[in-house]
Amino acid sequence: MTIKMGLVGTGTVGGGCIDILQKHREGFERHLGVDVELARVCSLSPAEAEAHGVGHLFTNDYHDIVNDPDIQIVVELIGGTTIAKDVVLDALAAGKNVVTANKALMATHWREVMAAADASGKDLMFGASVGGGIPIIGPLRHSLIANQIDTVMGIVNGTTNYMLTKMAEEDMSYAEALAEAQAKGFAEADPSADVDGYDSAAKIAILASIAFDSLVTIDDVYTKGITSIDTTDLEAARDMGYVVKLLAIAHRMDDGIDVRVHPTMIPQGHQLASVGGVFNAIYVVGDFVGETMFFGEGAGAGAAASAVMGDVLDIAERLEQQVPPKESHLCTDELPIRRIETLSMKYYIRFTVADKPGVLARMAGAFAEHDVSIHSMMQRGAQDDGHVDVVYVTHTARESDIRAAIDQIAATDGLLFGEPSVIRVEE
Amino acid sequence: MTIKMGLVGTGTVGGGCIDILQKHREGFERHLGVDVELARVCSLSPAEAEAHGVGHLFTNDYHDIVNDPDIQIVVELIGGTTIAKDVVLDALAAGKNVVTANKALMATHWREVMAAADASGKDLMFGASVGGGIPIIGPLRHSLIANQIDTVMGIVNGTTNYMLTKMAEEDMSYAEALAEAQAKGFAEADPSADVDGYDSAAKIAILASIAFDSLVTIDDVYTKGITSIDTTDLEAARDMGYVVKLLAIAHRMDDGIDVRVHPTMIPQGHQLASVGGVFNAIYVVGDFVGETMFFGEGAGAGAAASAVMGDVLDIAERLEQQVPPKESHLCTDELPIRRIETLSMKYYIRFTVADKPGVLARMAGAFAEHDVSIHSMMQRGAQDDGHVDVVYVTHTARESDIRAAIDQIAATDGLLFGEPSVIRVEE
Repeated sequence: MTIKMGLVGTGTVGGGCIDILQKHREGFERHLGVDVELARVCSLSPAEAEAHGVGHLFTNDYHDIVNDPDIQIVVELIGGTTIAKDVVLDALAAGKNVVTANKALMATHWREVMAAADASGKDLMFGASVGGGIPIIGPLRHSLIANQIDTVMGIVNGTTNYMLTKMAEEDMSYAEALAEAQAKGFAEADPSADVDGYDSAAKIAILASIAFDSLVTIDDVYTKGITSIDTTDLEAARDMGYVVKLLAIAHRMDDGIDVRVHPTMIPQGHQLASVGGVFNAIYVVGDFVGETMFFGEGAGAGAAASAVMGDVLDIAERLEQQVPPKESHLCTDELPIRRIETLSMKYYIRFTVADKPGVLARMAGAFAEHDVSIHSMMQRGAQDDGHVDVVYVTHTARESDIRAAIDQIAATDGLLFGEPSVIRVEE
Repeated sequence: MTIKMGLVGTGTVGGGCIDILQKHREGFERHLGVDVELARVCSLSPAEAEAHGVGHLFTNDYHDIVNDPDIQIVVELIGGTTIAKDVVLDALAAGKNVVTANKALMATHWREVMAAADASGKDLMFGASVGGGIPIIGPLRHSLIANQIDTVMGIVNGTTNYMLTKMAEEDMSYAEALAEAQAKGFAEADPSADVDGYDSAAKIAILASIAFDSLVTIDDVYTKGITSIDTTDLEAARDMGYVVKLLAIAHRMDDGIDVRVHPTMIPQGHQLASVGGVFNAIYVVGDFVGETMFFGEGAGAGAAASAVMGDVLDIAERLEQQVPPKESHLCTDELPIRRIETLSMKYYIRFTVADKPGVLARMAGAFAEHDVSIHSMMQRGAQDDGHVDVVYVTHTARESDIRAAIDQIAATDGLLFGEPSVIRVEE
């Protein structure tokens, strides 16, 4: 039986899928016993389809794919939450299996699209929505399924990791690192989705939903990007034995889920600390398996297409064996999301203050008043203008107390210059 | 439907499986919709069964499990290739699905047990046979299946990695590192399977068979262990920017499979270089996904039991859905195994020689005669007895030429003292 697939979106990842199928179709038939044929491609650009040698399959109307009775698998690669959502829902309603790489769609409309898949009795797979080609959703659902997963934590955005690596290792400013990332095609002209952390937030929402079997949407994720990270902070981190990474973090707690994205100091010896450049890595802790980590290219045509086509082949094997879908699940549990204000962790805080007597005492007083205990304090080089940087690392403290202490310090006349820099610390 | 499982072997891993089921049985039912019940346990030790609270399920005759018509999944955890093979074959013949963690069995009798599984129409899964709890067989068969896998390479033996880490970082001798590994329970009283590389060889045979879909057995794997590694070599490696690891390596080549286990120098910046202690890591390169790496605990009760029970739950889900088995495959391709003598790579070679004129010229001559081109040569500290260590790193050279050059040097009267130390270099 030949299984026909329709592709919606012929950009980088879509092109990679066409390449994989052209190169390996025969191999898939020999090794897996499934013959997958690209039957139709839809996009706004006939030129893209022609460039990959599939101009004869081109349409600019996705309904030509969704309404084709011979097509059994629809691959959605246009992204976003508007037309892409229509494509996915229409395809499921028409009885197609769907593969998508769309993190925004899954992190925003999980419940709706999963319910549509369940109602249609078809598969909805989205392995490429997190971590590019790194196998992570599959392992969480299969190899690691015997565990209670307690932590999923990772570097899931290559653009910001590239920038932070450049800033830390080559002493670039934020602006220089961004410009270089854009020049290399790692960052978009409008880099907001990456540098403000929303891309990471969508991915950790998806990972947390699977790992904890409890729905987490992008709106549940406390999100802070890297735009305020300064090389001063990266130097201070290095001197203290830390590295700053934009981490996406999800912890199972006794009373709910802690899920957030923010720049994080981690010890230089941590497995995630050595993940540089555009690479991604996801660290998973289960109650029996202990610590595991998954590493690889988080983006790029080949890596993401590898994940998309892995899902397509999984579905094709099930179609070939005439077995029902396996992957479509609404979450079973409804664990509450813990608000960040109620969490406790360690903090790095850098103030730029006037270099004069009494300043340290005032700050120490503010911390003490709000039950924030200080692990270390360090002055960093006096500046020409009579200002000095003072760096604190706290013991474990409640986020709300940290904020109150900082507010009190900031409200003291003539004490601070500029915004304090706050980076959470994960041991 | 309650799915009954019989457990053969109640040692460390078997005990971990009992613990998982006792802790998570309710969760599996809620999250996955499968109810797995431990119906019978078989071992030589009723005390082990009692220690885990399942003394009432004990038998010392595995036929009580294999012949029980209510048991659908048999878990074999006794290891070895004699009774364990009978258990697996008898269970399949009796129409049971089988899960095993037995690397020796799979690496030696793959064809026979796979054929038995195919004949019975039942599942045979062995995720825990490689890498303990690290998901690797699942990803190779699913998430990464759209790739042609070109390389699988890793640290798959925790015992030797622990020893090499101790030798490199704490300047321990081989004997001291072995004694400490034994004291901590990481190495057996007879450490041969680990230190001679056979454990790693079995694992890379299994990984290569899956990654290349072409049968590789343990006898196909060139295997050299760590017993001749000297701290002098680890120091020289460090000075040159390398780390020595016992790597299990499988490369797809144009004309066959290169598969081997030996101490290997890798650059300090390589992802595998920072994997220390008893941890395992497996590095996979696919033609579309690029580089990926899987890291975690390679041994221990919890990690291995996590993998075993992951397989049990996969089978239980298929039984629940009444779908046919998926994992049982004889390999499709029959790629030849390349003999190590025909391979070309870079080599580190350390000779202990008499500290006198003409020695270097003799050695240089031998290398030149056998077409071995030298990348660097370094003398390392003269010894009290008038001997000196000379370290060579070659350019890419053919293994057979290297051996011939070394033989020629060794045959020269009065030149060498002791055996030369040869470590292959992977960039």
